[in-house]
Amino acid sequence: MSIKHIGKQTMLFQNPPSVIGSACVVGKKEGEGPLYASFDSINEDSYFGMETWEKAEMAMQKQALSLALNKASLPAGAIQYIFAGDLLNQCIGSSFGMRDSAAPFLGLYGACSTMGESLALASMTIDGGFADVTAAVTSSHFCSAERQFRFPLEYGGQRPPTAQWTVTGAGALILSASGNGPYITHATIGKIVDAGIKDNNNMGAAMAPAAYDTLRTHFDDTGLEPSYYDLILTGDLGSIGHSVVVDFFKDDGIDLSAIYQDCGLMIFSDEQDVHAGASGCGCSAVVLAGYILNGMRAGRWKRVLFAPTGALMSPTSVQQKESILGICHAVAISTEIGA
Amino acid sequence: MSIKHIGKQTMLFQNPPSVIGSACVVGKKEGEGPLYASFDSINEDSYFGMETWEKAEMAMQKQALSLALNKASLPAGAIQYIFAGDLLNQCIGSSFGMRDSAAPFLGLYGACSTMGESLALASMTIDGGFADVTAAVTSSHFCSAERQFRFPLEYGGQRPPTAQWTVTGAGALILSASGNGPYITHATIGKIVDAGIKDNNNMGAAMAPAAYDTLRTHFDDTGLEPSYYDLILTGDLGSIGHSVVVDFFKDDGIDLSAIYQDCGLMIFSDEQDVHAGASGCGCSAVVLAGYILNGMRAGRWKRVLFAPTGALMSPTSVQQKESILGICHAVAISTEIGA
Repeated sequence: MSIKHIGKQTMLFQNPPSVIGSACVVGKKEGEGPLYASFDSINEDSYFGMETWEKAEMAMQKQALSLALNKASLPAGAIQYIFAGDLLNQCIGSSFGMRDSAAPFLGLYGACSTMGESLALASMTIDGGFADVTAAVTSSHFCSAERQFRFPLEYGGQRPPTAQWTVTGAGALILSASGNGPYITHATIGKIVDAGIKDNNNMGAAMAPAAYDTLRTHFDDTGLEPSYYDLILTGDLGSIGHSVVVDFFKDDGIDLSAIYQDCGLMIFSDEQDVHAGASGCGCSAVVLAGYILNGMRAGRWKRVLFAPTGALMSPTSVQQKESILGICHAVAISTEIGA
Repeated sequence: MSIKHIGKQTMLFQNPPSVIGSACVVGKKEGEGPLYASFDSINEDSYFGMETWEKAEMAMQKQALSLALNKASLPAGAIQYIFAGDLLNQCIGSSFGMRDSAAPFLGLYGACSTMGESLALASMTIDGGFADVTAAVTSSHFCSAERQFRFPLEYGGQRPPTAQWTVTGAGALILSASGNGPYITHATIGKIVDAGIKDNNNMGAAMAPAAYDTLRTHFDDTGLEPSYYDLILTGDLGSIGHSVVVDFFKDDGIDLSAIYQDCGLMIFSDEQDVHAGASGCGCSAVVLAGYILNGMRAGRWKRVLFAPTGALMSPTSVQQKESILGICHAVAISTEIGA
C-alpha cells in the first residue's frame, strides 16, 4: 500500500498543499469578541443586507470565498473543485452561496466538523494529482440555526448553562499544489462515535468522545506525540467538551492543557454571556481562517493540529429519541515541510 | 499538471478502482416494478421493522452496506473510508445508518446526485493512493421524503403530472484498488446550474440543464464521443428531464436516443402510476448497484456513463422564492481497462 495511508485512518500528503488564501466573515457579536482584529469583514446587520437569515448565510459564504480569492490573487475561475457544507437543511447555505462560483462543486455534510472534512478532501484532491487549486468553505448563522434546530427566536426560549452559541460566520480557504504555506501535511478522518448523549443543549459532551478518538488515532497512526504540535485545536466543544477531552488524555497519562485549545472558547469573551462557549460550522472555520492562519504566518505557531467536531443529529432524530452522534476530522497544518 | 486531471472538470483514474461488491435494498413498490429481479432485498414493510420511516431509511443503508460487503467477501473492518449521504435533514439516514460501521466516515450532501459524488470521491481516494478499499452508500425513502419535502402523507395532497415518486431504496458499492471490475475510469464533477425553475413538483426540468452541462463537459474534457458508451444513464430526471436532455443534444447535432436512459424511467412500470417517473438518491443507487452492474458483469454493456443529478433545494429555500439548483456528477464505468 501507498505511503500516503498511514495507520488506520490517516492520510499523509506527499506534496502537502499550501493554503494560499484564507478569509473570514462574521456578524456583530463575533466582531465584539476578542478575535475581532482577525476577521476580514464584520457585518453589523444580522441579515447581511438580505431578506432572510438563510440568504444572509449564503451571502456570507459567497463573500468569504471572494475575499479568500482576492488574498490568493486568483480569479474565481482558478478554483478547480469547491468542497463546501453547512448546517442548514439540505445544505442550502453552501449550494446557494456557491451558485455563482462556476466551479465544480462537492457538497458535504459533516455538521461542525465540515471545515476539517472539506480541508481533508480538498488536500487529497491536490496531493492525489487531480487538481492544482481547490477551496474549502463553510458557514453557520446564529439566527438560521436557532430557528431550524431549536425554537423560533421570537419565542425567547431559555438557554441552559450547557448550551452553546452558534457563531454567525463563514470561512474559506484556498489550497494550491504550490505555495509558501502554511501546508496541510496530514488528515485523520474520524469515525462516528455514539456516546449516548441525547440532550441537544449539551453538544460539547456529545462530541468530546469523538474528538478524543480522532486525536488519539492521529497520534497512534503518525507516531507523533501531542507535544509535536504547538497548538491542538478542537472546533466547538466549549467548556464542557474541552474539559472532557483533557480528562480523557489525563487518563492516558498525557497533560494536554498547555497546548490544547477550543475555538468555541476563543471567539467570545466571558462577558459576552454565551454559556458553555461557541458552536457552529462557522466557529472553527473563522477562527482557523483568521486568527490561527494569521498567527502561523506571523510565526506564532509552527505546527497546528486542527480538529473540528460535528454533532450528527437533526431535530427529527432527537424527537425520535436517538442519541447525538459525534464525529471529528483532524487536519495537521505546518509552516514547514520536508523536515 | 498531472495527467489525472483532464479538461476542465474531469478526473482520469490511472489505476481505475474496481467495484468488488454492490448491493441494493428496496421497498414493496420497487419490488413490484420491472427491475425486481435485480434487487438483493425487497421489504414488504415500509418501516423495515423499525418504528419510524427515518429509522427505516437508516436500516436500509446499513443492510445495503452489509450485503455489499458479503458479496465482496470482506469483513466490515476492511473498509477504510465510507462516503455516504441522503436527502434527510442533516443526512441522518447516513450518519445513523453507518453508525455501527466502525469506519472513517465522510458525509456528503449532493441530493440525488449523491451516488455520483460518493463514487467519484471514493474512486479518487483509491487512485490517489490514500486507501485500498472504500465504500459509497446512499438512500431515499418515499415516506420520509414526502413528509419532509412536501406534505404529511395523511394529508393526501394531489400530485401533478410533472411530479416524480421518491424511490424507497438504498444502494452500496465497495471499491477496491484491485479486482476484476467493473472499473471506475473517469469522474466529471458538475457545477451548480440554475435554470430558474421554482416548481418543486417539476424536479426533472430543474435538473436536466445540469445533466446536459456535465455530460457535454465530460465529452469535451475526455474527447470521447457519446457513442463510445454503450449506455448513458442519468439518475432521476424522469420523462420531462429525459426529453430535455435529448433535445439539448439534438441541438448539438447528436442523437442520444439509442443509448440514453434514465433510472427514473426504468424502476417503475407505466402501470405503477408514478406520473413523470421515479426520483430520490436511492433511485439511481439501486438501479446502478443491481440492474446496471449485474448487466455489466454479464456482458450486456461494456461501458456505462452514470450521471445522477441532484436538485439542490430545501422547503425553506423554496418558501423564500429561490429557484431549484441542479447538479450532476458523471462517473464512467467500464468492464475493461487499458484498452
